[in-house]
Amino acid sequence: MTDQSGTEIGLDAMAVARAAGRITRLARRTPVMTSTVLNKRSGVKLYFKCEHLQQTGAFKIRGAANAVATLPVSKAPLGVATHSSGNHGAALSCAAAARGIECHVVVPAGAVSSKLENIRRYGGQLVECAPNQAAREKTLAEVVSKTGASPVPPYDDPRVIAGQGTIALELLEQVPELDAIIVPVGGGGMLSGCALWATHKKPGIEVYGAEPLGADDAYRSLAEGRIVDDHHPDTICDGLRAKIGVLPFALIRRHVEGVLRVEDSQSIEAMRLVMQTLKQVVEPSCGIGLAAVLNNPEKFAGKRVGVVLSGGNVDLDLLPWASGGIPDPLKRAVNQ
Amino acid sequence: MTDQSGTEIGLDAMAVARAAGRITRLARRTPVMTSTVLNKRSGVKLYFKCEHLQQTGAFKIRGAANAVATLPVSKAPLGVATHSSGNHGAALSCAAAARGIECHVVVPAGAVSSKLENIRRYGGQLVECAPNQAAREKTLAEVVSKTGASPVPPYDDPRVIAGQGTIALELLEQVPELDAIIVPVGGGGMLSGCALWATHKKPGIEVYGAEPLGADDAYRSLAEGRIVDDHHPDTICDGLRAKIGVLPFALIRRHVEGVLRVEDSQSIEAMRLVMQTLKQVVEPSCGIGLAAVLNNPEKFAGKRVGVVLSGGNVDLDLLPWASGGIPDPLKRAVNQ
Repeated sequence: MTDQSGTEIGLDAMAVARAAGRITRLARRTPVMTSTVLNKRSGVKLYFKCEHLQQTGAFKIRGAANAVATLPVSKAPLGVATHSSGNHGAALSCAAAARGIECHVVVPAGAVSSKLENIRRYGGQLVECAPNQAAREKTLAEVVSKTGASPVPPYDDPRVIAGQGTIALELLEQVPELDAIIVPVGGGGMLSGCALWATHKKPGIEVYGAEPLGADDAYRSLAEGRIVDDHHPDTICDGLRAKIGVLPFALIRRHVEGVLRVEDSQSIEAMRLVMQTLKQVVEPSCGIGLAAVLNNPEKFAGKRVGVVLSGGNVDLDLLPWASGGIPDPLKRAVNQ
Repeated sequence: MTDQSGTEIGLDAMAVARAAGRITRLARRTPVMTSTVLNKRSGVKLYFKCEHLQQTGAFKIRGAANAVATLPVSKAPLGVATHSSGNHGAALSCAAAARGIECHVVVPAGAVSSKLENIRRYGGQLVECAPNQAAREKTLAEVVSKTGASPVPPYDDPRVIAGQGTIALELLEQVPELDAIIVPVGGGGMLSGCALWATHKKPGIEVYGAEPLGADDAYRSLAEGRIVDDHHPDTICDGLRAKIGVLPFALIRRHVEGVLRVEDSQSIEAMRLVMQTLKQVVEPSCGIGLAAVLNNPEKFAGKRVGVVLSGGNVDLDLLPWASGGIPDPLKRAVNQ
C-alpha cells in the first residue's frame, strides 16, 4: 500500500490488532480516569488514558514489545539496537530483557543521568556518542554492523506504530462512545498508530494531534503537504521534540483530523491541573492534550473526548512552577 | 462495651460492615497499586490503598458519609456542623450536600486558602473564629445552639471511626492475603477503624500506626497507658497533627500491634518515592506509611503489607524538595 505521495505504508489496522495480542505479557492495560472537576471546567466529557502508569512509565513499551516479539527466530539472538536518550531506550531494553536478548542503546554524551539510569535498570547496554544526529546514526550503524543486532527505530517503523496503536484499541474498548481522541505528536508513532486504529474501528471519530508551538513540524508539514525541512525544536515538552517520521506522516495525512498547536505555558498549566485534580504525576508532554481541549471549546464542547497521558517520567526537582516560576534551564523554551 | 480503662466504646466490627453498605453512593472503592521497583527496594510485597483518589481527595469522606447517612430523619434537616481547617470540612460538606442539608464549618482565622476553597466548593458554610482550640469549640457550640445542626467531630466519633474502617474492609477484599496493614495516625479515627475491622476479619493480621516523631502522642499514650497531656505537634505532615481521640485510643490499645514513629525527612523522601514510582500525587502524611516499612525491615521483610495512602490534597507550590531543599515555612518542622 502506498499513499498519494508514493510512501510505502505497509501496515493496516489489522497490524494493530495483531500487536495487541502480542504485547499483553509486557504492556499493561492501563486504566482510564475521569474527573468531574475537569469536566465542569472544560464543558467536555474527558477520558484520560493513563499511559504514565504503563510499564517503564510511558507508552513506548507497546511499540518496543511488538517490535521485539516480531523478530524472526534467526535474528532475535543477535539482539536489538537503537539510539535514544529517553523512554524508547528503556522500553526497548525492557522488551529485549523479557525475550532474553541484548539491547544496545546509543546515547548522546551529556544525556540526562536519570534517563540513562532508567535504561540501565532495564538491562540496556549504553554506547555513548557525540551529541548530534549524524553521530547517533553513524554509531548505531557501527553497533549494528559489529553485533548483528536488529535496529528498532523509536517511531518511523511499522512494528512500532502498530504497537503504539494499541492505546487507541484499548481506549475504544474501555470507552466505546468516544467522539474524539487527542494524542501528543513528536515523531508521530503514537498519533499515527492511534489514528490508524480508531478511524478503522469507529469511522467518523475525530483524531487530533497536540503539538508544541515550538516544535510544530507536524502541523507545518500537514499544511505544506510534505515534511518540512526546517525543524529547530524549542519546547519544554521533551518527549515531543523529534521530527515527524516519514511513515507516521503518511498515515497522519490520511487519518488525522488536524494538529492543534499549544504554547508551553498552557501545557504546563494543564500538567499542573492533571496533578491537582487527577492526582497523577505526568510529563509536560501529557499536559498538552488537555491544553488542546481547553484551547478549542468550539471543537469539543459537549463531546466525549479521549486524551492520552503519554508518560510520567518527570524530574520532580524540575517541576516547572517550583520556586515561583519556571526554572532557568527551561525558561528560554517557554518564553519563546 | 467498655475497655479496661472504662471508656465506653459502643461500636464493634459490624458497625464497619454496616457503614460500607451506607457509603457506596458517595465514597469510591479506591484502587490498590503495586510497584515492582518498590517491592525490590523494600524486600516487602507492598499494596498501596489509594485514598488520595477518593472523592474530595482524601479518605475523610467515608466517615463523613456514614455520619450523615445515620442522622435521624428528625435531626437531619437542621444540618451538620464541625470545626476543621482541612479535609474533614470538605468531606462533611460534600456528604451534607448529597443529602440536601446544610453544613457549617468553623475555621480558624488564617487557615490555608486552598483548603477553605475546597470546603466552599462542596457547599460548606464557613464560620471564622480565632485560631485556637478553645475558640473553635466555643464557636462550634454557638453554631450548634443557633442552628440545631448535629455536630460531626473529625475522628472522636463512632460513626466516623466505622466509616474510616471501610478502608480496611475494602483492602482485605482486594488483597485477602495481607500479613499487615500500616495506617497513618493523627486523631486516630482511620487507624482505630481499620484495626477494628482487620483484626475481626483476619485474626492474626498485624495493624500498625505510622506517626510523625514530632507529633508522637499516640506512641507516648500507648507507652503510658493513658492519653498524654502534652501535645505540641511539630511536623510537616499537616494531616497528622491532631491529638489522639479518646475513643480511637481505646480501640487502638486493644487492636493495634504498635505505632511506628517516622522522622519528617523520611516521610518526605518516601512521598517523593511514591510520586516517582507509582506516579501518584500524595501528601507527606501519605509518605509516612512507606517510610515506616523502609525503616523496619526486620518487621516486614518478605511479608505482604498494605499501606494506606490517605490523601492527595497537597499544595504543588510547596513540594518540600522544590528549589533544592525544604521551603522556609516547612524547614523548622523538619529540622527538629
